[in-house]
Amino acid sequence: MKRIGLVLSGCGVNDGSEIHEAVLTLLAVDRAGAEAVCLAPDIEQTEVVNHLTGAVEKGAARNVLVESARIARGKVSDLAKATPADFDALIFIGGYGAAKNLSDYAYAEGEPIEVEPSVARLISETFRAGKPLGFLCISPILAAAVLGQEHLELTIGQDPETAAKLVQWGSHHVTRTASEIHRDPHRLVVSSPAYMLGKSISEVADGIDRLVAEVLRSIS
Amino acid sequence: MKRIGLVLSGCGVNDGSEIHEAVLTLLAVDRAGAEAVCLAPDIEQTEVVNHLTGAVEKGAARNVLVESARIARGKVSDLAKATPADFDALIFIGGYGAAKNLSDYAYAEGEPIEVEPSVARLISETFRAGKPLGFLCISPILAAAVLGQEHLELTIGQDPETAAKLVQWGSHHVTRTASEIHRDPHRLVVSSPAYMLGKSISEVADGIDRLVAEVLRSIS
Repeated sequence: MKRIGLVLSGCGVNDGSEIHEAVLTLLAVDRAGAEAVCLAPDIEQTEVVNHLTGAVEKGAARNVLVESARIARGKVSDLAKATPADFDALIFIGGYGAAKNLSDYAYAEGEPIEVEPSVARLISETFRAGKPLGFLCISPILAAAVLGQEHLELTIGQDPETAAKLVQWGSHHVTRTASEIHRDPHRLVVSSPAYMLGKSISEVADGIDRLVAEVLRSIS
Repeated sequence: MKRIGLVLSGCGVNDGSEIHEAVLTLLAVDRAGAEAVCLAPDIEQTEVVNHLTGAVEKGAARNVLVESARIARGKVSDLAKATPADFDALIFIGGYGAAKNLSDYAYAEGEPIEVEPSVARLISETFRAGKPLGFLCISPILAAAVLGQEHLELTIGQDPETAAKLVQWGSHHVTRTASEIHRDPHRLVVSSPAYMLGKSISEVADGIDRLVAEVLRSIS
């Protein structure tokens, strides 16, 4: 049975993993007959957002690994201890957690952004191990930041400023809809805009189904 | 467009809504061309559970409506203000939140359990309005507690103690698998065991797809 690492960054689109994307990926992996291996770093969230009002809850503290366990129904491991030997492919779920907890993209005013060290290491090692990588929603910024020198073709949505960052860091931006994916023609890297563009959960599910299928096909 | 009320009880299987069940229901409703209307009571959770360790986080406080907004991507309304005019059918998502926040089933040692008043009112009013009701996972205890005198046929899983409660309160227990549903032969009430029995997200998704389809078919 193929094992697919899924990287979570908390539980909730505004300060962690986009919950729909995470669950839809778990569903697509299970329906494909593969096993999901959920991973998240054991670090504090940079902030806690009230998802009803959108306001930051000052003084509130939550842990990325602990909150990710809500989505994973308890079955999630510390990403810092993971290596590419633990999975056949690795998929990053979107949500602001990728830009607030897994990197400082949401806060960075200068260049370059910092990617959380265990996350940067795992992206690098997985790429060098020749195992497929999938990136949903905003998470292609992680690929661009860590693997910019590879000049990857990545989706990110349609925001010109975000797309410009990818290009500035050496990657190529490819425009796709939420239900579409793009695979780099030369490398085992697949991405899809998901909720960067998706207006409905069905559209996002279509894109995720395609991304998971392409990632599984890419496993050697 | 048909509107389906979805009742959430927080965000996480051990102290709120079962996240997979909630997202899979949102997906099934959207794919069926209907609109989901998320509802949750604006009350404090009875407890906060660390989903990594299973331990209760003493002193921690979270609000059911605010946490439910994580699943609903912000689009969730106060259940206390909802009436059956707001939707064409009403589906209750499972998770311990149904037994800890929407009722005191998880804590009740005596009989009968107490159902949160706005939840009890909405179940009653929806039933009397002739609109279909769907109950996933553990949430049929709410139907049994509020509508016991209707002698409904309900699923709950295979735990004899829980099934005995349904019977004690006047309902009939029907055994189904996670991918199956049961509709009461005489009333517009559909239920499915979901994660009470489900070993995989695919199984649970199959049951939820069937429940949503049956609930939609039952709308007059």
